[in-house]
Parts: sequence; C-alpha cells; structure tokens
Amino acid sequence: MMGMSWKRLYRILQPEASGGAARAFRLVHHAMVILGIAIMLADTVAPWRQEHSRILDAGFQLVCAFFIAEYFARLGAAASAPSAHRRGWRARLGWMISGSGLFDLIGALPGVLDIAFSPKYASLYGFVWAFKPVRYSAGLASLGRVISRARDALLSVLLAFGIVLLAAASLAYLLERNAQPEAFGSIPRALWWAIVTLTTTGYGDVTPITPGGRVLAGIVMIAGILVFALWAGILASGYAEELRRREFLRTWDLVAKVPFFKNVGASVIADVARLLRARDYPARAVIMRRGTNGDCMYFIASGEVEVRLGPGTVRLGPGEFFGEIALLTGGPRNATIVATQPCTLLTLDIVDFRHLLAQQPELARVVSEEAERRLAADQFVPATVWP
Amino acid sequence: MMGMSWKRLYRILQPEASGGAARAFRLVHHAMVILGIAIMLADTVAPWRQEHSRILDAGFQLVCAFFIAEYFARLGAAASAPSAHRRGWRARLGWMISGSGLFDLIGALPGVLDIAFSPKYASLYGFVWAFKPVRYSAGLASLGRVISRARDALLSVLLAFGIVLLAAASLAYLLERNAQPEAFGSIPRALWWAIVTLTTTGYGDVTPITPGGRVLAGIVMIAGILVFALWAGILASGYAEELRRREFLRTWDLVAKVPFFKNVGASVIADVARLLRARDYPARAVIMRRGTNGDCMYFIASGEVEVRLGPGTVRLGPGEFFGEIALLTGGPRNATIVATQPCTLLTLDIVDFRHLLAQQPELARVVSEEAERRLAADQFVPATVWP
Amino acid sequence: MMGMSWKRLYRILQPEASGGAARAFRLVHHAMVILGIAIMLADTVAPWRQEHSRILDAGFQLVCAFFIAEYFARLGAAASAPSAHRRGWRARLGWMISGSGLFDLIGALPGVLDIAFSPKYASLYGFVWAFKPVRYSAGLASLGRVISRARDALLSVLLAFGIVLLAAASLAYLLERNAQPEAFGSIPRALWWAIVTLTTTGYGDVTPITPGGRVLAGIVMIAGILVFALWAGILASGYAEELRRREFLRTWDLVAKVPFFKNVGASVIADVARLLRARDYPARAVIMRRGTNGDCMYFIASGEVEVRLGPGTVRLGPGEFFGEIALLTGGPRNATIVATQPCTLLTLDIVDFRHLLAQQPELARVVSEEAERRLAADQFVPATVWP
Amino acid sequence: MMGMSWKRLYRILQPEASGGAARAFRLVHHAMVILGIAIMLADTVAPWRQEHSRILDAGFQLVCAFFIAEYFARLGAAASAPSAHRRGWRARLGWMISGSGLFDLIGALPGVLDIAFSPKYASLYGFVWAFKPVRYSAGLASLGRVISRARDALLSVLLAFGIVLLAAASLAYLLERNAQPEAFGSIPRALWWAIVTLTTTGYGDVTPITPGGRVLAGIVMIAGILVFALWAGILASGYAEELRRREFLRTWDLVAKVPFFKNVGASVIADVARLLRARDYPARAVIMRRGTNGDCMYFIASGEVEVRLGPGTVRLGPGEFFGEIALLTGGPRNATIVATQPCTLLTLDIVDFRHLLAQQPELARVVSEEAERRLAADQFVPATVWP
Repeated sequence: MMGMSWKRLYRILQPEASGGAARAFRLVHHAMVILGIAIMLADTVAPWRQEHSRILDAGFQLVCAFFIAEYFARLGAAASAPSAHRRGWRARLGWMISGSGLFDLIGALPGVLDIAFSPKYASLYGFVWAFKPVRYSAGLASLGRVISRARDALLSVLLAFGIVLLAAASLAYLLERNAQPEAFGSIPRALWWAIVTLTTTGYGDVTPITPGGRVLAGIVMIAGILVFALWAGILASGYAEELRRREFLRTWDLVAKVPFFKNVGASVIADVARLLRARDYPARAVIMRRGTNGDCMYFIASGEVEVRLGPGTVRLGPGEFFGEIALLTGGPRNATIVATQPCTLLTLDIVDFRHLLAQQPELARVVSEEAERRLAADQFVPATVWP
Repeated sequence: MMGMSWKRLYRILQPEASGGAARAFRLVHHAMVILGIAIMLADTVAPWRQEHSRILDAGFQLVCAFFIAEYFARLGAAASAPSAHRRGWRARLGWMISGSGLFDLIGALPGVLDIAFSPKYASLYGFVWAFKPVRYSAGLASLGRVISRARDALLSVLLAFGIVLLAAASLAYLLERNAQPEAFGSIPRALWWAIVTLTTTGYGDVTPITPGGRVLAGIVMIAGILVFALWAGILASGYAEELRRREFLRTWDLVAKVPFFKNVGASVIADVARLLRARDYPARAVIMRRGTNGDCMYFIASGEVEVRLGPGTVRLGPGEFFGEIALLTGGPRNATIVATQPCTLLTLDIVDFRHLLAQQPELARVVSEEAERRLAADQFVPATVWP
Repeated sequence: MMGMSWKRLYRILQPEASGGAARAFRLVHHAMVILGIAIMLADTVAPWRQEHSRILDAGFQLVCAFFIAEYFARLGAAASAPSAHRRGWRARLGWMISGSGLFDLIGALPGVLDIAFSPKYASLYGFVWAFKPVRYSAGLASLGRVISRARDALLSVLLAFGIVLLAAASLAYLLERNAQPEAFGSIPRALWWAIVTLTTTGYGDVTPITPGGRVLAGIVMIAGILVFALWAGILASGYAEELRRREFLRTWDLVAKVPFFKNVGASVIADVARLLRARDYPARAVIMRRGTNGDCMYFIASGEVEVRLGPGTVRLGPGEFFGEIALLTGGPRNATIVATQPCTLLTLDIVDFRHLLAQQPELARVVSEEAERRLAADQFVPATVWP
Repeated sequence: MMGMSWKRLYRILQPEASGGAARAFRLVHHAMVILGIAIMLADTVAPWRQEHSRILDAGFQLVCAFFIAEYFARLGAAASAPSAHRRGWRARLGWMISGSGLFDLIGALPGVLDIAFSPKYASLYGFVWAFKPVRYSAGLASLGRVISRARDALLSVLLAFGIVLLAAASLAYLLERNAQPEAFGSIPRALWWAIVTLTTTGYGDVTPITPGGRVLAGIVMIAGILVFALWAGILASGYAEELRRREFLRTWDLVAKVPFFKNVGASVIADVARLLRARDYPARAVIMRRGTNGDCMYFIASGEVEVRLGPGTVRLGPGEFFGEIALLTGGPRNATIVATQPCTLLTLDIVDFRHLLAQQPELARVVSEEAERRLAADQFVPATVWP
C-alpha cells in the first residue's frame, strides 16, 4: 500500500469506479470468484481431488489470500469514505459492523478456516464467494429494490402459503396416515409432501393413494398455481414501476447535456425525458445501416459518430442529431452511421417522435428544416441546434 | 373481567387497536397460535409424544383454554360493537351467527373436543389455529380483496380448467385403458393423472405410455401453462389496482396533516397525494446517510428527526421537510438524519420531485428558497412552510 | 311445442334471456349436464356399473333425449333469429352448418350413438357435454376474447416452443441414445422427454444421465420458465384491457339512467363512467353496516334500498345516492342499508370520489349540500338530484 | 437463374415480399422445412428407417439440395441489397460473414455433411432446419425484441438464479452427502438436483431424505417460484409496451390513407391512431352480421365490402365507414356486411368511439349526420367524408 493513499484505494474499490486501476481490480476480483468456485466444485469430485490435489490447494490458498487482502484493504479505506462521520479506527470499526463489512468478512471466512484447519475442509465453504458479484451488478440491485418494495405483499403471500401448507399437511395426515404410515405417519412428514405439491414440483416420492387424499392433492395443486400467479402479479406491478424510474433517471441526466433540448420549456422537459431512452455503443459499432427501415432518431449525448455517404464521411459530435430523415420521409436509411468512439446516444422511437413533434411545434420546425437542408444539399452536414 | 367494561374489552380485541393492553393481547394471541401448532406437530411424532406426553397435554390444554376464553370475551364484547343495532344478548346472538363469530367458534372447537374426548384426539384439529392470524394481517386482507374482486374471472378460469380436466381424463381413459388398466381403468382414476399433469406437478406415479396418450399429455401440459398464465394475468391487473388504492388512501390522510401542502389547490391535491409514499421508521433508524446519493426528499407527517452536521445537531418536527438539497444540486447527501422517535414520513421520489416542481411553480419556489437559505447559512435550520 | 311460437322458443333459448321459462330451461340444462357427466364417470367404474346398471342406463337415456330435443328446438327456432336473412328451412339449414349448430350437434351425438349402438358404448363420449356450459358463461366469453385477441402472440410463443422442443429432442437423442437406448432411442421418443421437461412437469419416468444430457436438461427447464413467463406477460396485458373494456361498457349503460349524472357535460361523462363500477345485490343483502369504515358511495341504478336508522326506516329508489357522509366526514357509517329488492348500484370508490369531486365542483356542491342537510336534520331524507 | 436479374431474385427472397414468385418461394421453403424435419424424425426410428430407406434418403437429398441452392441464391443476390456499400463479390463476402449469411450457412450444413459423409449421418443434424421459419414470423421478431429489450433484467434474474443454484447445491452436498453418497457425492452432482428443484420440474430421481435437506428443498422450491414470477413480471411489462408500439405503427400508416381523418388536427392524430386497430379480412369474410350486437365501427383503409340489406346490395370502398348506427342507437346491427376482396379495416371500439366523439365534436357531427341520413333513407348509401 506504499505510495498509495487510502483515499485513492477507497475510490478504486467502489463498484462504479472508472479508471484503469479500478477496472483491473474488478477483473481480478471476478476471476478470483470464478476460480474459487471452480476449485470448490472440483474439490468435491473424488478422482479430480486425488489427481490434482496440489494445484487445487495452491489455487484455493491464492483465492483465500485475495479475499483476506480485499477485506483488509476495504477496512483500511473505510476511514476515507465520504459518509464516515468519525475518523481513523473508529470509522473502521463502524465499517466492520456494517452490512458491507460483514459481507466481506464472510467472504474472508474460508481463508480463515483454511489457516485454522485445512484447505480440504475450508473449500466446502467456498460457495459464499458466489455472492461476491452481487455488489457489482446494477441489475441485481434493481431486482432487490423491486422485491424490497413489494416486501409486504410477498410476505403476505408467504404467510398464506404457510397457512395452506399447514392445513394441507394436517388434512393429508388425517386422510393418509393409515394407508401410508411411512410417508404420512406424522404431520412433519406430511409437510414434505405438502410443500412438494404446493410448489407443483411433484417429485413423486410421496403421493396420496386414498380418494380423499387425491382430492386434497388436487386442491393443493390449484392453490399452488394461485400462489405463483399472485407473486407474478405483485412483481409485475413492481417491476414496471422500477423500470420506468431507472430509465427516467438515466435519461434526465443526459437530456440536460444535449443543447437541442434547451429550447424545451422547463415544464415539459420531464415529458421529453420520459420519451427518450439512453443507449451505449462501443467504438466501431454500426448504429444504423443504409437501406434498412428506420424506426428511431438519435441525439448524441457524448462521443462521436461517423456518417458514411459513399465517397467521403462526415463526423457528428455531442449535441447533434441524426436519423430523422427516414422518419420524416418514410423511406429507408440513406446513410450508414458508425461510432468512432464509445458513444451514449438518446434514441427517440418513431412512435414518440410523432407525438413529440405534434406537441412541440418549435422542435418540429427545427428538425424538419435540418432534414430539408440535408436532403437539398444531398450531403450530410452536421447540425447543432443552439436555441 | 371485573373492573373492565365490555366497551374497553371490545376496543382491546379489535385487530388495529393501539395501546398497551391491546398489544399485549395480540402478543399472547400469536404466541398461543405458534404454541398450539407446535404442539399439534409434535403430538403426531410418536417418539416425542411418548417422551413428553405430560408437557404436550398441559400445553395443549392451555392453548385450548385461551381460545375458549377468547371466544367468550368476544361474545361478551359483541354487544358493545358500534355496528350493533340490537342490545344485550340479541346483539351477541347476532355475532354468534356472523362470519367473525363462526370463525372464533372453529378456533374454540379443539378445546371443546379436548373436554369431550381426550387431548390426543383433539390435537389433530389444532391446524385450524393456523387461520387465526388471518384477522391481524393487513396484507392478507389486501390479497383477499384482490382475489375477491377478480373472483368472476378466476372462477371462469377454474370452469375452463374443469372442462379441460374432464375432457383430458375421458380421452386418456379411451387411449390408455387397455395399456394400463390399473392407472386408467376408470375416468375417476384418469382424473388423478389429469390434474397432476394439468397443474404441471407431474408426480410420475402415473404416466401415459401409448403414443396417443403422450400426445394428449403434451397438449394437457401446454393447457396447464395457459391456466397459470391466465391467472397470473388476471391477478397482475387486480393487484396493481389494489396497490395504487391502498397507497393513495394512506397518503391522502397524511397529506392533510402536512402544512406544506396547504398551498396546493384542492383540485391538484389528489395528484400530489398520488406521488407521495408513506413510510414508517422506528426510533433510532438512519433515514439518510451523509455522502450517499439522494433519490428522494422527505416530509415529516409525525414524529421527530435529528440532523447530524458535524459538531451540533438540529431537530425537525411534523410539517418540516428535508433531503431536497441533494435533489436540487445533484450532489451527495450533506447530512446524516436519524429518527429520534417513531416517525411517519412522506417520501417524494426524485422522478416525481421533478414532475411536481415543474408543474407547481409555487412549490418549486418554496423548496428552492429554503434549500438556498440552508446552503448559504452552511447550516441546517428547520424550515416550516406556513402558506 | 303446441301453443308456443318459434319466436318465443327462440327467446327462451338465448343464453342471456330473462323470464321464468328461460331460467327454468337453463336450470334443467345445467342439471342435465351435471347428471350426464356423473353417469359417464360412474359408468367406467366397474363395480358401480355392475350394481346400478339399470339406473345408469335410464339416466343416460334421459340426458341423451334432452340434448337431442334441445338440438331440434334450436333448429326449429333458428328461423326466428333476427340475424336470419333467409326464411324457413333455408335459415335452419344455415344454422345447422354454423358454429352454434355444429356445437349442439356434437352435444346430441352421444344420443345418436346410444340409439345406434348401446348406452355402455355411447356413454364414453359423454364428456362432450362438459363443453355445454361454455355458451352460458360470460366470464368464459371474456377469456375467449382475451385469448383470441392475443392469438398471434400466443401462437408465436407456441412456434418458438415447437422449435425449442425439436432442437432439445434432437440434441438429447444425440447425447443420450447410447446411454439409454430405450428412452432416447429415436427422436420421437426423445420428444416425450423434451415436452415433459420444457413444461417443467417432470414426471421422472425418463431423465438424462450423461453430463451433457443434464446440462441440456437444465437449459430446457429454464427455457420452459421463459415460455411460462412470456405467456403470462402476454395474457396479463390482454386481460387488463378486456377488464377495463367490459367494466366501462356495463357502467356506461347504467350511468345514463342515473339523473344525478345528467349535469355532467357530455365530454366528461366517459371519464365519470370509467370511475364507477356496477354491482348487483340480491334482495335482503346488507349493502353497508353501521359503525364500519366507509370506502365508497353508491348511486342506485335500479331497485330499492332501505335505510335503517334506529326507530324508523327510509326507502331510497333509482336515481338517489347514499354512503357519501362517511366519505366526507371520515367517520364510520351512520346507518345500515339493506336491499329490499334486487338492486344494481354504481359504486364510487373513495379514491375516485375525491378525484371526481376535485375536478367537478358542481357535483361536489350537490353532494356536500345533501350530506349537510342529512346530517343537520339528523335523519336520512331521500335525495334525488334533478339538474 | 437465366432471364432473372439478381435484383429481382433479391426482392423475391425478402421475407415480407409480395407477388406470386415470392409467395411460391415461401411455400416451397416451408414445405421443405416440414419435409426435412419429418425425414429426420423418421430416420431415427429403426423400423421406419429399414423399410423406407430409399424414400427417406431421396427426400433428404432433395431438402439438402434446396437449402444449398437457397444459400447460393441469397449469396448471389446479396450484391443487390440496398444496404450494400460495396459491389460485386465484396458485398457477397460481407453477407457471408453477416448474421444472416451464417444462419443460412448452418441451414446448408446438413447438405454438406450429406455429400461428405452419408445421408444417415447427416440427417441427425436436420433439426437446424427447425430454426429456418424464424426469419418469416413477424410474431417471433416481436418476441425477440421484447426479450432483447428486457435483456439486462432477464440476465440479472439468471445471475441470481445461478447464485441460488450454487448455494443450494453446496448446502445440499453438505447436508445429504453422508445419507446419499451416490446422488449428492459431489457438488456437480448436487447441482443436478438443485436445477431440477429450482425450476420446480421435480423429476424425483434424486430427492433429499434428511430433515435439513428437506427444509433446504422447500426453500429452493419457493425461490424457484420467485424466479418464475420475476421473469413473468419483467416480460409482462416489456410485452405490453411492444404491443402498443406495433399496433400504433401499423395504424398510423393506415390512418393517413383514410380521408375521414383528414379533418382531425395534426396534434391529435396520434391520439386517434392510438384508438384504432388494424384488422385484415380475407375475401368473402363476414365482417358483421345482422341482428347481432355491435361493439365497434369500421373505416375502410383498403379493399371493398358489400352491404346486404334485404333485396339489393350496396358496395363501400376505401375511405368510407360503416357500423356506426348500432353504436349510436344501441340497437342490433341492421345489415350484414361481407368483404368482396381482401380488406384492411380500421376498427374503433365502442368504448373509444364514445371517447373520441366526446372529444372531437366535428367528428361526432359528421358521423351522426351520416347515420341519420342512412336511417332516414332506410337504405345504406355509401358515405365518404371529404373535409
């Protein structure tokens, strides 16, 4: 850690950090997770274990060392977190008992077990590393938020699930215990049948054989479908909301950077942001291809694109727009456009394009004039609209 | 019951009652439900039963006594219900034959069986207690309302389910009865296969073996997916509506208590209430943490919070708001805010914050001025907006 | 059929017909369906068949006779249908080859088989009667419309399902045929495994045992979940739309009959109709109960209700409203209201009540004045609002 | 290929091409797909293979030849694609390495294998032809777009699925390996149980038998339902949006062709287009039937219909409308209307009809006047509204 301040280390360890060092760290981190899990899997297969004992142990100790080092690095950097109120070791102690600290402690645990006992024993607990990537996935965070917002409703379904489960097991015990004393001899045993049936898993290791038990099983299966359907319904509502929210937040931040939208009044900017969708393109990606049908237009939020029109090419940068001609004329794309560097574009779907232009005559005029000029000049001159 | 009026008893027994006595009653009630179910489960496991016979019987009789006592308490208090038209024993008789009365009678039944026969026999029926918590769960009531509103559609799917079931069983009987006389020897037997297949449970105890029977099974399975999907679709629609409704009702009542919203015209108050979400925080909960990203602002409907800004702290009470600075500046939170007592806050999401401020210039002015004042003073002075 | 015109018979046979004769016909029809299916089920159980042979045959012949008679009745009445362009036997011939005619012909078929062969043989085909109630269920018609509108999308999923099925069976055949020549010895056999797995039914009679086969099975199962999810998503969208549509149509017709809504301008009547929900109550049903919380108000579209307020009672008829006081005061219901005859009420939810009143000041004034008058008089005087 | 330019061939090969040659090509293409798959299936069934060896081989070689020919036809025509930037063989080379080129190369592969090895060996790979129809299904393209837009969310669920899978397998290995060393002897083996359980397939070939393993299984099953529900929720949101988008695009193009909508201002045309639904009718299809209830009105976008009103008939062409009388009077349809040639109609649902007329008084006047004129004249005179 010499030559590197805690502050810099803190920045590198943040999940959303940019820069070479942070990217390298994430790469090594994910590689270690995959390696650790692969070793854990291999370790339990007896022939592999016997043959490659040395390599497996060495690899396991490497992964363990990495996660212990990560723990101490995060512990040291905790004092430099902007959210820390206290300084020095008191801030570090605060991090140790926080959710994030305990999460990384669990990740370091197989290493501790390794030192205390033996790699063979410790590797059984390597599956905890499977949870390590959770911190880096924005999609999982989104899903987590959906589930956490719908928590009450999901738990209510779970409570109903539990009540039905218990009632089903009790009734099955009453109906089947004489016919099948082995499988339905006590309610805890009947519970196994009930959960296998209520989730419509249906292993088939235990099935009712009396007429009454079979009628009960039919009702339990239908109740199981209802539980499925309720959860699907609850999460469908929640997810739709989360999706809208996430899209809007991303777009809103970008819209402010596009000069084109400056002449849209403050009161409708929220509506405009709702219509746009942000999309990222890597360098050299083909954004649109000549001759294909056009179904959206693009505003450049950042990066640069190259317009290929036969002999020469034209370059467009942030604040410029393209792709409007095909939407206005209804014809195919008249140019191929390629990203020359990583780009963030705001796309406006043809459906929303028509809505927006109908409601914002000023925007319609700017877009139409530019399209006419481009078509008239039979060449593609970059257009930036400064209001 | 000496020294306690029927009226007070009635209030204590209401599911949503507040106050120490009501909370204590609910605690004992839920404990009794859990104890009763645990005893019922243990009672059916032969070794446990033999070893702990005495404790199980004593515990069972305690639970029985509690639910019998609850029945008589509710019966006595029924005459004090505000909905009662008749007085005295006539009101009690009315309650006995009402849904609520029969529900509690069933809860008291194991106790009656216990007295009439023996604990061993009676405990089999202890599973009825699993339904007891239904009365206390607002979430289950919500789900019940969703299912009850979608009743017609769900029953239509069930009717279609029944028709497909019967047709599938009849055709399977025609196709498979010669190949498997044991499993498909009569339509009632084939019905067992049909329901196991249509719900996609698939125990595997009975499977078709003729080519015709297998093609039929494939169609039945796909029909099963369709039933799932239809129910999920129906409940998704219903649940989304119920959710909106419940949120709105809760928020509407709270908005009236926040002076900030007094200067919003009556015609848009409904739209404002739609944007807010009520959230409860226990005492000492951290509502927002310094340095994290801000995605909503808060209005205090009840309770008190403490703003921690380095050396000193500031307290905010009902009618005040906080968290708007991060939304306006786009920077991280500049203070940590903790609840000093149980709080109810109205949160305004960043997405809706921008919408609301764009459409309500008066609100925008108040919020911005307060934020500027707070930032300028470099300290957090409580702000209450009285129009 | 003497003394009864074809026209009258036609009206009686319509599914939505009212009047005693039509209701009696439907009752007999449904009883015959249930009887026919019960006999068919019993007929296949050997001991029941042997014991009650006579009764079963007699019952079966009765049901057959009824459905043959129904066929000829509908055939005769077809000439009186308002949609018939041609008269007499030409119209009847048209009906015979229409969907409805073929549907009833299939219903009469077991009867024809009974005459041609024997009841024992014919009863096997009694399951066709299970489809008879389809004509009478408005809910099934609704579901049918949802499925028919989403037909293209559902069929696309089915096509994708078929492609995945075939690819899965082919790959499983390649991977497993050497290990399990019995179960995976040809692609048609492997298809059986594929469909059981893709629908996540999982009988377990055929399972892959090679590592490659198991990885394939895992992918197929996940694809199966995706199919489920796609169908659920498609039907959720479709059902929500159908529900809105059906509710609106019903309410629209009733709103026109309530004088209260006359003073709502033509341009907003559609919005008002969207907020109301029609509900039917049988005679003697308790619509609201004193002391409970109020969450909606009611407009009487048809029928009559009785307001019970202590000593005397007041009656309200079509065009009057009630239940608004609890919504305005926030208190509990101050009266119990019971239907004296079958009623159709339009309910306005508390959420929509607030919206409507905020947007329609004229309606708000009328409702508030009436509520004040009722509260001031401490008695419930019927209020009809004629604009 | 003599006498046929590459340009014409290119047009014929496009999936959405119209004209006899294109239709014939598609017919042959689909027939070849079905034939190829049927031969592949038959080839693996030993008795069929032995009996019809010659026919199967001949058929297989025909299908192979067709797909190889298709590959070269598309390769040749690639130079005439409007999207091609380069000419001649350079454009063809570009197509060969494009997605479309590789797709067709895989389709030609069984033919190459057939030439290199033997039909018996090659036919195993005939299942790749099952993917051939994908290019021609607009519905599959739609579904593909839904899945691709929801890609991030679906992959997040898959990541969560993978984490739960690994954790479940590891824990099951820890809990069950001593009781069932065969089934749970290593984590890779336990993974098989985990995926069968998490997808609720439940073959039943491996089931936990220890109490701890069974509790774990119950939790895994419930997690499986949650995965189902999450995917269903995600796809429900995505599909609803795609559906709206596709409908709108189709309708928008047609609305411009109906003169009736010319007098609707540009700013509301988008709202009108949103209310209409395009429907295609083949020649001789009955669009509406006299005496039935009317639930929508129609605008003719293209084609011609015949109005049957007793003795004579009237014909209506593009730009005219019908079906409005039943919506205005509330009575049954007063005419039967049949398509005389393939028609594209824009339907306006009764619900939207009322909305539209309430908001567009000009349209309401035109529709009402025409309806009155038609009713007054007691005959159906075609009405075209030129503003």
